[in-house]
Amino acid sequence: MAVGRFDFFSECLKRSAEFRIILPNEADAAGEESEPMKLLVLLHGYTENSGAWLWNSPIVDVAQRYHLCVVLPTGENSFYLDGEATGRQHAAYVGQELVRYVRKTFGLSCRREDTFIGGLSMGGFGAIHMALQFSDTFAGAMALSSALITYELAAMQPGNGNGVANYEYYRLMFGDPARVRESGADPEKLVLDAIAAGTPLPRFYLACGEQDFLLEPNRRFERFLTEQKVGHVYTEGPGGHDFSYWRRHLEPGVRWLLGLA
Amino acid sequence: MAVGRFDFFSECLKRSAEFRIILPNEADAAGEESEPMKLLVLLHGYTENSGAWLWNSPIVDVAQRYHLCVVLPTGENSFYLDGEATGRQHAAYVGQELVRYVRKTFGLSCRREDTFIGGLSMGGFGAIHMALQFSDTFAGAMALSSALITYELAAMQPGNGNGVANYEYYRLMFGDPARVRESGADPEKLVLDAIAAGTPLPRFYLACGEQDFLLEPNRRFERFLTEQKVGHVYTEGPGGHDFSYWRRHLEPGVRWLLGLA
Amino acid sequence: MAVGRFDFFSECLKRSAEFRIILPNEADAAGEESEPMKLLVLLHGYTENSGAWLWNSPIVDVAQRYHLCVVLPTGENSFYLDGEATGRQHAAYVGQELVRYVRKTFGLSCRREDTFIGGLSMGGFGAIHMALQFSDTFAGAMALSSALITYELAAMQPGNGNGVANYEYYRLMFGDPARVRESGADPEKLVLDAIAAGTPLPRFYLACGEQDFLLEPNRRFERFLTEQKVGHVYTEGPGGHDFSYWRRHLEPGVRWLLGLA
Amino acid sequence: MAVGRFDFFSECLKRSAEFRIILPNEADAAGEESEPMKLLVLLHGYTENSGAWLWNSPIVDVAQRYHLCVVLPTGENSFYLDGEATGRQHAAYVGQELVRYVRKTFGLSCRREDTFIGGLSMGGFGAIHMALQFSDTFAGAMALSSALITYELAAMQPGNGNGVANYEYYRLMFGDPARVRESGADPEKLVLDAIAAGTPLPRFYLACGEQDFLLEPNRRFERFLTEQKVGHVYTEGPGGHDFSYWRRHLEPGVRWLLGLA
Repeated sequence: MAVGRFDFFSECLKRSAEFRIILPNEADAAGEESEPMKLLVLLHGYTENSGAWLWNSPIVDVAQRYHLCVVLPTGENSFYLDGEATGRQHAAYVGQELVRYVRKTFGLSCRREDTFIGGLSMGGFGAIHMALQFSDTFAGAMALSSALITYELAAMQPGNGNGVANYEYYRLMFGDPARVRESGADPEKLVLDAIAAGTPLPRFYLACGEQDFLLEPNRRFERFLTEQKVGHVYTEGPGGHDFSYWRRHLEPGVRWLLGLA
Repeated sequence: MAVGRFDFFSECLKRSAEFRIILPNEADAAGEESEPMKLLVLLHGYTENSGAWLWNSPIVDVAQRYHLCVVLPTGENSFYLDGEATGRQHAAYVGQELVRYVRKTFGLSCRREDTFIGGLSMGGFGAIHMALQFSDTFAGAMALSSALITYELAAMQPGNGNGVANYEYYRLMFGDPARVRESGADPEKLVLDAIAAGTPLPRFYLACGEQDFLLEPNRRFERFLTEQKVGHVYTEGPGGHDFSYWRRHLEPGVRWLLGLA
Repeated sequence: MAVGRFDFFSECLKRSAEFRIILPNEADAAGEESEPMKLLVLLHGYTENSGAWLWNSPIVDVAQRYHLCVVLPTGENSFYLDGEATGRQHAAYVGQELVRYVRKTFGLSCRREDTFIGGLSMGGFGAIHMALQFSDTFAGAMALSSALITYELAAMQPGNGNGVANYEYYRLMFGDPARVRESGADPEKLVLDAIAAGTPLPRFYLACGEQDFLLEPNRRFERFLTEQKVGHVYTEGPGGHDFSYWRRHLEPGVRWLLGLA
Repeated sequence: MAVGRFDFFSECLKRSAEFRIILPNEADAAGEESEPMKLLVLLHGYTENSGAWLWNSPIVDVAQRYHLCVVLPTGENSFYLDGEATGRQHAAYVGQELVRYVRKTFGLSCRREDTFIGGLSMGGFGAIHMALQFSDTFAGAMALSSALITYELAAMQPGNGNGVANYEYYRLMFGDPARVRESGADPEKLVLDAIAAGTPLPRFYLACGEQDFLLEPNRRFERFLTEQKVGHVYTEGPGGHDFSYWRRHLEPGVRWLLGLA
């Protein structure tokens, strides 16, 4: 089991960026026959960085048991969006540049059906959003306790905000809140566009704890997926917005992405 | 000689941030009598991160020879400013929170005369600017090939930009370019304010290569410091905007900050 | 919550050594009143390194909840002993030099009652052994599935070995196996010496899974501690020699060391 | 330019080992046509670890300019030898397992003419020795201020030693000193064996400072290579046993290995 930390130059961010990587490839390197590894891009939440999943969940063990390369980028409170004028093109960085970079650098599978994205909270939003935005890259997304915040943003007024950030910050990340539901930042909009265009949609594994403050937007998005007949599973159960919940859902989510559950 | 890399939670950035640190403290830890170590915060340039000085200069050797703790933050193309609404309070982060954190965590000297800041290009600007903004913290700044960009910004028009970034990006970092010279982002403004208020000024070690595209603003700032009778040295010589120049000026700059030259 | 990785020069190893550290000190650094942090040195098992506990257990969360500094050294299959002629004085390194270094570098409590050592398998042996060898430093040890191997070694013949290593390797680490039970490498010998000398003994938290191949030596050592009236608790239960067992026992062990259980 | 640090499981060391890597592959990953990268394994000296070259020389810049992947292992004072019974098979680890691992993991060239090894002091010895031991892997070696210590060891008596280590330590690493000149640890023996067997020899870039305490053994080995008509260059000049000398010789050595000088 190899675990690494990399600094590399990102064209999208116009600067050195860092990621961690879990690479269960010793046997392959020793000469055993093997397929190129599958890839899971795994996203942290607001206030966290690339170490969060590594320190708080059994992701190393899961990666090893399913022979899966896991890449852990740092999202810098960006909601993994291409913020206007911020010089931080996080969606293009994570969903395109980083995937291309690790596929090439580590010889991973380049097939859509072997490429997944997952995350928690802000990273759950990012996983859903990027799986839709780059649906030719990702076959599925695992989204835990997702910060499906565009529902709330649409009604947010200048000067207001919520417990996470203020109106100005959201405006910078998502564009004008008043128009966010019609924008490329809105997951429902991206689903409808894909259906209209007939482009393939990713499959979704969604989970949210019953005590989570984000339960309602998760239920709402699940209803939307059901109405639109988008392939997904959704799990609710006891639990709050913390790693004791996410830890339990990591392996079931990964198994589902891999078609094992 | 100890070299470390830390992830810690920054209140100013509202997220995990990372820094590298050089800590020549083995002898102290082994029980030798010693003073608390002096601190140099050392800033990278645009497109770089906390590894830049470590990989491209003899900073480890310099830290050891002068028994100096060197902290290397990551500035994320922010110009080390508290960008409006960006959620990235980099000046407060580097100039206050990080200094306080490393002083406390590593038992460093808390005296102004033992605390310095340095940098190159964007980091040279940051060193000058933060030494002025937090002049009760820093006794001196070493600024190499500094991106003293507010001269140019003041004349920048919407839609324009330069080779580094566009107008919108600068606006986000510096505030309205048309008013930047009267703002807290302008080094000259901060010097004049300090003189008017009678507050102490840091001392400056400035250097710029004769082939550097930033030569003119460096000369202009030097003339300003001379006119205002602010203590400084300024060096020009053959060299461009690259590490072969910065590498040569690192030790002389550190020696001057420490009062050894 | 800060997590770091350090390279520093060890006099005992005569070379650069690396350790990881978990330091839940942001609040302290921000100026809140605080006591110096307590220290837990946490040891990995055979074949692992300083990352093992970090990647496979909730140690970051435990450190934070109990405001405990956790230091994770790399033991290089040494059994944390001062191997003869190997140039690897791992007991002196971990039990003395590293403790002194992190106490001084990070301003930790220097009191015996605030200093603990723990580990799993080879690291469980190391925790027991170093807590006894440096009983003026450590108030207690948490030893999970401990490789209490001197019982077996005493009967090992040249040319033989076990599934872990061969006779020659053990000889290098432990000295002559035929005399190991009378040597400073034997935990029982150290307990008897301490009782004879009237020096203080550490307290022990011991646990072993009922399916663990090391169950018998753990039971034997527990009977010995009981006979010798050395303060300890011992837990057995379902479980094997793996992190799903160690993960469950981490927090109870830490709570017991801290006098909270 | 990517710089990484990896922990991975080494079969030769029977444990997690760490290395650093410099990988100038952003352009390749972005889709430019490219050949698989060449590899330089670069070895540190006694008392150092995988960070030494990175912190003390412009190796990042050199790697980038020559589009060379540089791998920096940690040798733990082993002289990069397969010490008897030490459980540390460092020659097999660095010269075989690590090369195979990084070639496979990072998609490097597997051709002998693209694979090089270099080092300083103990690492200079290691580079010479492993280039000979694994001459089907390495086309050339760059050896600076090499610790060509078998000349001295052959005369060492039990109980003696030198400023670096004692007799027992050398015995553990090199085998019986009295017979070291006839053993696989002796570079001259390996050259003579290769000539006798008609197997290919690597080419050598050797350099040593005139003030270096290792000057004589370097001169002696150079005379031996000349007598045996082994392809090499040898440079002497002002300089001692320190990075100010090695730094200057890094790029010339790399250029020579690459056939550019």
